Amino acid sequence: MYIADEEMKSYKDFIYVTATEKVEIINITVGVEQIAKESSIKEGFVLVFPHHTSSAVYISDSDPSLVEDYLKLLDNSVPSHRDYLHNLADHKRNADAHLKAILTGHHIVLPLSDGRLDLGTYQTIYYAEFDGQREKEILVKIIGE
Amino acid sequence: MYIADEEMKSYKDFIYVTATEKVEIINITVGVEQIAKESSIKEGFVLVFPHHTSSAVYISDSDPSLVEDYLKLLDNSVPSHRDYLHNLADHKRNADAHLKAILTGHHIVLPLSDGRLDLGTYQTIYYAEFDGQREKEILVKIIGE
Amino acid sequence: MYIADEEMKSYKDFIYVTATEKVEIINITVGVEQIAKESSIKEGFVLVFPHHTSSAVYISDSDPSLVEDYLKLLDNSVPSHRDYLHNLADHKRNADAHLKAILTGHHIVLPLSDGRLDLGTYQTIYYAEFDGQREKEILVKIIGE
Repeated sequence: MYIADEEMKSYKDFIYVTATEKVEIINITVGVEQIAKESSIKEGFVLVFPHHTSSAVYISDSDPSLVEDYLKLLDNSVPSHRDYLHNLADHKRNADAHLKAILTGHHIVLPLSDGRLDLGTYQTIYYAEFDGQREKEILVKIIGE
Repeated sequence: MYIADEEMKSYKDFIYVTATEKVEIINITVGVEQIAKESSIKEGFVLVFPHHTSSAVYISDSDPSLVEDYLKLLDNSVPSHRDYLHNLADHKRNADAHLKAILTGHHIVLPLSDGRLDLGTYQTIYYAEFDGQREKEILVKIIGE
Repeated sequence: MYIADEEMKSYKDFIYVTATEKVEIINITVGVEQIAKESSIKEGFVLVFPHHTSSAVYISDSDPSLVEDYLKLLDNSVPSHRDYLHNLADHKRNADAHLKAILTGHHIVLPLSDGRLDLGTYQTIYYAEFDGQREKEILVKIIGE
């Protein structure tokens, strides 16, 4: 029946990342594509949503050198040495990690067309870890038909 | 019938905020959760979308001191005293409010799983008002099944 | 039958932009509205997603002078003359374009209600081109009922 093709479906899975460094940007494109394929959803939206506030997901060019340029830009905008209230309040040292995650945008929504991520030629999905060296969970949730 | 469970549904409601201060960041997590619950949608996406361009919604840590750190960072990046064309053109003083809203990202999309916001332990939804002291409208729209 | 109204639908079309200048911000609100109308979808989400990493879509006020203010702010935050690794690696000169696109946020998700974009009075959709003078493709994908 044609109605069956147009029923709404949802699917959910996780990507787990443990960054070696405190600050590290990791290409997760293949992992997101794999989950999209497993979902069997043909047309819809893919939400890539870290379950943390000291990391973020964003889209950029495939050239790895741009990753270094972006980290340097963030260090200029959000110095790690500044006296942040969060660091005083929690006896933590990760205020800059939270602020960098906000500026980077935290989560993304991707188009899914004909069962595949509908991205431009050079578009790459990056997970930006700003407080690493421990396991982090990234939710990938898909809705569509 | 099993088809009934997989029909698509949509739901829409508003959160109204009147900030006491010109610039103020307000935790709206409970309000968004309430609307998600009222929708009776189990699996889907929640769009939190201010109907204004001088405010923004973002996700961050639950520690309130981080709110002050973020406002200070924005004040360094977007000084309120600079000679903005918008302030000259409209005889307004809120150019910095619009620019801060762009950098913060304006709106967010949240995962909804098993009828609840699917957030990490410390994830909190903030409404950042950059031109307050008047009522603002935040649209919360949910689609799913 | 009432079920027919609640079937899920998806729709996809493109907006093509060729900016005259290297850096240019273009109002694409009418183009997105047109595609939303063509979709015949009444309730849903509209994803506006450039198929490039040197441009971005964002929401701001309708005042055009604010566009200039935003470009000036980005030039202060992301100088075009700095020694970026990407420029050395690729013999390109567009590292700043990629970085500005990340900060601006790349893509947006809009609410669609009763067959129309559900925006506030002054909300305008802008395409920010940071590496122009060639044709770029913006995907507009809609899911809903």
